[in-house]
Parts: sequence; structure tokens; C-alpha cells
Amino acid sequence: MTLQGYTAPLSPDGRASLVPPPPWHYSGDFLIVEYRTNPDNVIALLPPELEPADDPGAVCAMFADWQSCSADFHELVDPIQSQYKEFMLIVGCKYQGQPASRCVYIWVDKDFSMYRGWIQGFPKKLGSIHLTRLFPVGQGTPRLEPGARFGATCAANDRQIARAVVTLREISKTGPTVNGPPMYNTRHFPAASGLHPTIFELVRAGGYDREVSDIWEGEAELRLYDDTLEDLQAIAPREIIKGFRFSFGYSVDGVTVLAQHNEEAER
Amino acid sequence: MTLQGYTAPLSPDGRASLVPPPPWHYSGDFLIVEYRTNPDNVIALLPPELEPADDPGAVCAMFADWQSCSADFHELVDPIQSQYKEFMLIVGCKYQGQPASRCVYIWVDKDFSMYRGWIQGFPKKLGSIHLTRLFPVGQGTPRLEPGARFGATCAANDRQIARAVVTLREISKTGPTVNGPPMYNTRHFPAASGLHPTIFELVRAGGYDREVSDIWEGEAELRLYDDTLEDLQAIAPREIIKGFRFSFGYSVDGVTVLAQHNEEAER
Amino acid sequence: MTLQGYTAPLSPDGRASLVPPPPWHYSGDFLIVEYRTNPDNVIALLPPELEPADDPGAVCAMFADWQSCSADFHELVDPIQSQYKEFMLIVGCKYQGQPASRCVYIWVDKDFSMYRGWIQGFPKKLGSIHLTRLFPVGQGTPRLEPGARFGATCAANDRQIARAVVTLREISKTGPTVNGPPMYNTRHFPAASGLHPTIFELVRAGGYDREVSDIWEGEAELRLYDDTLEDLQAIAPREIIKGFRFSFGYSVDGVTVLAQHNEEAER
Amino acid sequence: MTLQGYTAPLSPDGRASLVPPPPWHYSGDFLIVEYRTNPDNVIALLPPELEPADDPGAVCAMFADWQSCSADFHELVDPIQSQYKEFMLIVGCKYQGQPASRCVYIWVDKDFSMYRGWIQGFPKKLGSIHLTRLFPVGQGTPRLEPGARFGATCAANDRQIARAVVTLREISKTGPTVNGPPMYNTRHFPAASGLHPTIFELVRAGGYDREVSDIWEGEAELRLYDDTLEDLQAIAPREIIKGFRFSFGYSVDGVTVLAQHNEEAER
Repeated sequence: MTLQGYTAPLSPDGRASLVPPPPWHYSGDFLIVEYRTNPDNVIALLPPELEPADDPGAVCAMFADWQSCSADFHELVDPIQSQYKEFMLIVGCKYQGQPASRCVYIWVDKDFSMYRGWIQGFPKKLGSIHLTRLFPVGQGTPRLEPGARFGATCAANDRQIARAVVTLREISKTGPTVNGPPMYNTRHFPAASGLHPTIFELVRAGGYDREVSDIWEGEAELRLYDDTLEDLQAIAPREIIKGFRFSFGYSVDGVTVLAQHNEEAER
Repeated sequence: MTLQGYTAPLSPDGRASLVPPPPWHYSGDFLIVEYRTNPDNVIALLPPELEPADDPGAVCAMFADWQSCSADFHELVDPIQSQYKEFMLIVGCKYQGQPASRCVYIWVDKDFSMYRGWIQGFPKKLGSIHLTRLFPVGQGTPRLEPGARFGATCAANDRQIARAVVTLREISKTGPTVNGPPMYNTRHFPAASGLHPTIFELVRAGGYDREVSDIWEGEAELRLYDDTLEDLQAIAPREIIKGFRFSFGYSVDGVTVLAQHNEEAER
Repeated sequence: MTLQGYTAPLSPDGRASLVPPPPWHYSGDFLIVEYRTNPDNVIALLPPELEPADDPGAVCAMFADWQSCSADFHELVDPIQSQYKEFMLIVGCKYQGQPASRCVYIWVDKDFSMYRGWIQGFPKKLGSIHLTRLFPVGQGTPRLEPGARFGATCAANDRQIARAVVTLREISKTGPTVNGPPMYNTRHFPAASGLHPTIFELVRAGGYDREVSDIWEGEAELRLYDDTLEDLQAIAPREIIKGFRFSFGYSVDGVTVLAQHNEEAER
Repeated sequence: MTLQGYTAPLSPDGRASLVPPPPWHYSGDFLIVEYRTNPDNVIALLPPELEPADDPGAVCAMFADWQSCSADFHELVDPIQSQYKEFMLIVGCKYQGQPASRCVYIWVDKDFSMYRGWIQGFPKKLGSIHLTRLFPVGQGTPRLEPGARFGATCAANDRQIARAVVTLREISKTGPTVNGPPMYNTRHFPAASGLHPTIFELVRAGGYDREVSDIWEGEAELRLYDDTLEDLQAIAPREIIKGFRFSFGYSVDGVTVLAQHNEEAER
């Protein structure tokens, strides 16, 4: 008998893995605020392989309320295994001259998603994230109509990270733009000892069978807080661009390795 | 200046109250499993003012995924203040010869809902509750169609309480029945010292502006666990009746006091 | 058979109660920061029965890391039922000319303690509280010695409430003073409908078998945050007095009712 | 400017890393139950490089209540960054003929410890863990004396994992034995795509500056639950050996790679 598993913990039947093997299927609701910050501080968050975007200070603050599962869908009936919420900050950039994006910070509220993210190059920490929900009946919900307001918050380590409100105005013709181009993240995993990583590679995120609802847009507010473990004030909003609210689904079967980062250049 | 507030903590401007004043507006998704248990153990959970139901062993296990707010709707854009999930066990009974219901156990995941429940006679404890969600796009979600499966779980004090799965078959002609009649709960609050309550009164739950989606029904599974602080094995399922899944909204403006319980009879 | 229980949920054997009957026994570690704020805003938090203290702007910010149990000690071996942490703001005042204190805001991380607090007039909300611990071995702990630093934080609703650090200097000759006098809180519970409380009475907190360790004192830092549901900026520190760190144990058997608040005067 | 960090997220100043660089200092309290289970099922959890122990069915169920920090101790004053609790199942084995141990399952309640564990080959999942605490005063605490009882629980994904009680009898002459020998774990990290790991290596855990309190031993109870994601019934207790309670501190500076696992042999 041999030990099985896509991730540890390995076990005789493989069922103990923290993350089940790909593909993974996702359905979610999104609340996005696009804004501009100090471009120098965005550029400082890019690895050498990525170049500044044409609008180098543009940032996407994205809250997502997800339900996901693996190939046999079994997690869907045990919702604690399938549901999670996350908040991420995505910056624009270029890769080999083409528009690109990069997730620079991200928080999520479940372990399986945190680790599945690390496998794909998302540097996830645990956080607590909330988004206004849409319900079909009753008065305890906004509707998809002009003037409807959707809010979202993120905290981590009992420190406030972000708070946003989007007021719907109309169905968007363009949708959000900063997070639109392919995303280039870094898979990173430290060595058994010492400070140099064993894994340190530039990857391009994948995904297929994308499906999206109507995208609503409107005015937005966003606050990034000052007492965080990360230096979020460096990329705090100077100017709000726009807010968006929509639902999105897709499937993922891993990411593509593009380059091994040059560690000497990095550290 | 005087201290203000619908509940404590009282403060000069009243905004510190744990619960804002009624009315409260609710929108939610429900997953229900109706089952039969030992009738004697249901009857043992009724106060003297309530009589056994015609089907005295019928119980409703209800999971609810709520978003609620007060009169000015301000909580909706700060979703941690408006969202909560709960699980409750509701038994059938009669009051003055008419069909009635009673919530005998209930767990919820937020403080404002826990305390708002106590005000209305729901004996809420904190728990962790999860329900399968419905999303409009992607493969990470069931659809409202025959064969779709929705699950739910409840735990409290790191002890498992309940696990359910409902498999949709068709749109229900009747909807659930155990929780249908008016609900008669007990408002209870201990005295400053000693074992006798200061408040101990039978109340009838209220509600108006009810709105309900299509109600789907189908087969169901339910497990109540054995290592709980409450004696849930006494009312564990002997026979599953049916499962239901739907959305529901209403508003509440308090409950009606029907009688002062006779404490001597009770204790 | 009749329904039993010190609190709801009532059940045939009474074991389902959220809170077991008194007496309750407590052991805990404390981190305290005493400070001065705007006296007018402290006075605005007092009910008519209480008068300003001689040093009317003095406030005690108290973090506590508790383990408690009821008469048969059974909760001690199921620590999720016995452990909790809390943060409270206590102001000085007078009652009938004698030094007194009052808990104006308090957050706790367990339901049984939240409800047990309401019974005694502590207006508890749920929060997340952390205090530096003291361990007997290893380097992952401060020691009880000059220069040792102990920190504490509180958040609620994913909003930061307070952050404190106390640097020990010496064993205190006086101990903390603001929270020393008898504490006068308000038991408050709303009516079944309407805005007027059913219970609204001034009580004096009790306790016996007090036991205290050496009390260390030293310099302190305290921040109350600006984006809270309560108006904490009104009583934010203008001047830090001193910090304290010690362990404390006692037992409680209820509180004493002193007066019915005059609701007309209050609202 | 280049991106810095021991782990992702990388940032210009490096402070955003989920885990700070080693060394890490630890202080903790332990509750241990040693028991025997089906030896075949222990052996089935060993990789090919490890051989069965002389007592091949012996297992150590270890609950730990930790406070840890990195080289500059800064996490100690922000206790949410330094405190965590964990539960692990450790089996005995041999490496090259010498007594060894291996952590086969482990749950922890903080992200930084979860990820720091993965770096060292501990296959950590998130869980909720509680241990009875020891306080110096009051009646809300056991004392270190014969007959004192300490309990502990672990749950994960709202499923119960383990519950233990140890009743102290005397100071132990031997201390626990299963977890005593050097620990051999597996560092494992999946590839960017596909099912084969990028990192898959046998490592020996390290540690220095060990410090231990008196070790108390006594009778013990342990239950592993049946409705878990992992197959814990395979290694459930057949016979309880003994329980232990003590405090422990040490420091860690990484682990040592001993071999690359042969993936073909494993999968």
C-alpha cells in the first residue's frame, strides 16, 4: 500500500488531502472597486519580469463570495467545504509588452482555498470577508436596480483591511478593466532551511468555461485601513474610478509556469 | 442628557445598542427537513399552556441563511451586521385547540440575532451553520431542478449538532407543514439573583409582508449527533417525511404576550 | 414532567440551559490601562442614580483572559465551555456619595459569558480579544520582570476596538484604582413589543472569595479606534495614567437590585 | 527596488510575508494521550523510507497551546500573531533502524502556523482546538496535584475530531515516549499543473534550547470521532496507555532534508 493524495496529508486512500485534485469548478458573486494610487508604489510590487501598465497606478479591489467544488461536485452538499469569501488587490502591468495583471495581496476565510491559492501563486492569508447578498424576496436585500447599494469588508488578524460600498447606476458596457488581462503571479515556497525559496516561479493563471451575469456599475467608495501588517497605505486610493457588481463562474485546471524567477535579482 | 437605546449598551446617542429598534426586515434562504420522532419526547418539551399536535411526533429541522436590517436599511451595506445563519428545531403543538408550533432549540452565528431572538422568545445559542448556496452562473452551484442537492450543517461548542441533505424532486404543492401554524415561544430572563426568572411569559411570534419563492420539495436525509450539550437524541429522526428548499422574506415588529407562565408549575 | 432550566432553552432535564445556575467560579489574567479622557463624555454615560467621580475623566480599559465554571466544575474539562476573553471600559462614578464604578462597554468571545453578563447588567457584545500569555518555559513568553511587555487587542464586527501594551516596571503598591470600588450596572431587557424595557434596574455587582496574585505596574499605551459602532472617540485617551498586569480569581452568586430606573428620565 | 520576503506575499520592505524568517521561539502547554491502535493501519501511514516501530500500534494524541515569535520577539505584544493551538496524531516508526516518529495528521487555528508547518513538513489543516488552562489563583482552574483533570478538544470543518481528558496522578519518571524520538515528516507541494508534487522530500524536524517543566502523568480518556474527512477510525484507540500534562519551550531554525521521496513508489 502506498500513500496517496494531491496534497498532504497523504493517506492510504488519499481522502485526507487538504485540497482535492483539479479541475475545480467555481461560482461566485463579485464586488469590485477600481481606483488609482501612487504609480511608483504599484511598480514597486512587480517582479522584474513584469513591466508597468499604460495606466500604472490603476488598482482593482475585488471582493468575492465563492462556492467551489472538485470534479465530482461532492463538496457542494457540505457547504463548509465549498464556500469561502476573499478580498484581493490586483494591479495592472505588462508581460512581454502585452497587458497583464497581478494579485499582490489576498485574504480568504478557509484553509482549502488558502492552500489551493498558494499552489496557483496567490499569496493568500486568512481573513474575514463579508459582501452584501442578493436575495429573491423580502426587504432584507438590495435589488439589481439603479440606486441599489452593496457593501463589503475585509479584516485579518483582527485588523481592518478594507471597506467598500458600490451604488449601482446601470448595466456596464465595459465591465472592470484592471483585472481583465491574464494574471501573472508567483509560486513561492521556502526551502527546508535557510532563507531561499525552493519554488520561485512566474506563472500565468488559467481558467475555462467562463460564464458571467450582467455586470452592473456605479459609484464607489473604498477605504484601506492604516493599522495593517502589510503596507497598504502605499497603494491606498487617490482617486476612485468606478464600482462593479456581478456573478461569475469558471473552472480551473492549474496554472502555467512561464519562468523561474532570478532569486538574486529579487532579494 | 439621558441614556438612549433599544437594548443595552445604552449611550448618549443610542447608537451603541446591540439590537436596533423594530421593525426588522428579513430575506433568507431555507432548507427544511420534516421528520417524525418519539412523540413523548416532543410533548415533554411543551409548557403546560401548549397541547400535543395531531401528529405529535412531527418535527421541523430548519436551516436558514438570512440577511436582515432595521427600518433605515443601513445594515445592508455592512454585511457583517446584517447576515447570519441559523438552525432550529420546531415542534408541532396546539394552543387553545388550534394548530401551533414552538421553537425548542435554535443556534445562530451572530450576537445581534442571538439577542434579538431572546427578546422574541427564541432560546438562541451561538453555533456555526452552513447551507449550500444557489448562484446564477458557473458549475460550483446546484440549479433549481429535479435531482439538485442542497446540504446544511450545524455545530456548536465545537460539537456537531445536525447534518442534512435535500434532493429536489418538484415544486411543492403544500410546502412544509410543521412550522406553518403560529409559533408560541417563551420569553425568559433570570432574576438578578436566585433561580427564578424575572421574565417568563408565553408569546406568539408575529410577522407581516411575507413573501415566498417557489418551494421545491424532495427526499431528505438528516442526522442529529450524539455528543451534544442538549439531549437531541430524545428527538432524533425515526422517520424522514420530506425536505424543502425555498426563499422567504418578511418583517417583524415584536411578539405578543399571551400569558405569564406559572413558575411553580414549571420548575 | 415539567420544563427545567436556569436560562432557556428549557428542557425536561434542564441541561440545555445556555447558562448553568450560580454560583460561578472564575480564574483569570488581567491587563489594564488606566487613562483620562474628556470628563463630560464620561458623565454622559452615567444614569441619573450615579454621580461623577472625584476624578471624573478617569477610565479603566481592562482586558481579561478567563476560565470559569459552575458549582460542580464540570465545564473545566471541556474548555470551550469554560474559557473566554473579554475587553471592557469601566468608568469611575459615585453612588449615594460613595466611590463607585460602572462598566459602560464590554465585548466577550463566548455566548454563555455574553448571556451570563446580561443577567448581571454587563451589556456584552461579541468580540475577538487577545492577551499576551505567560508560560513557565521557553523564549516564546515574557517573564514577570521589569521591562517585560504584555499586549492585548479587541475587535468586534470586524472593526478594531482597542490595542494596548503594558511594559512592567515593578510590583505595584496600589493596584488599579478606577475599577476598585463596587460596580453599578444596569440590567436591561426589552419588552415583547414596543421600545420600553421590561427590565430596567440598577444593580450592584457582587463576588466573594477574591484571590489576587502580585500586581505588576508600568508604562502603558492604548489606542481606541475610530471606525466603531459605538462612539469610542468620545472617551478616547487624552492622558495615559498607568498599566497593570496580574491574575485574579473570585466567585459570583448574582447581583443586588438597588433601584428601578425611571424610564421617563432615561429616554 | 526588489521584492522581499521569507514567504509570499513579497513586498518592497518584506514585512507582508505570511511567516517571518527563522529562527522561531516557542513556549507551550501540552496535553498528551498515548494509546494503541491497529498496527497495520499505523504502518499504512508510513512512507517507504520509514519502518514499523517496535511497538507498531502506539500513537500519541497531542494537544498543544502555543505562543511563538520570531527573532525580535515583536509578535509577543500582538498576541493574535503569536498564539495558536493545535492537535496532532504522531505515530512511532524507525528510520535506518533507529527509533523515529512521524506526524500523520495535524490541525491548527492560525494561518501563520499552518503555513510555517507546511514549510517544515507538518500537513496542517485549520481546526479549532481547546485545552484546559492552569491559572495561579481562583477556583476556575485545576491545580498541579493528584486528581486534577485537564481536558482538550479538536474540531475541523465543523466536524468533531477528538476529545480527551487526563487525570493527574503523579510526576512522571519517563514522560511520553511515542513522540520522543526524532520526527520524520514529508515536505510536499503540488506542481503548477498536474498531479505530481514539485516538492516531495523526507525531512527530519529540528529544534534546540529545549526546556521542559515537571511532567505530570495519569489516567486518560480519548475519543476520535467517526464523521471526519480523514479516516481516523482506522487509528482509533483500542487501548489507552497513559496521559501527560506539562509545559515545553524550544526554538527552531528549519528542518533537514534526508531524501527525495520516490514518487513512483508513492502513488
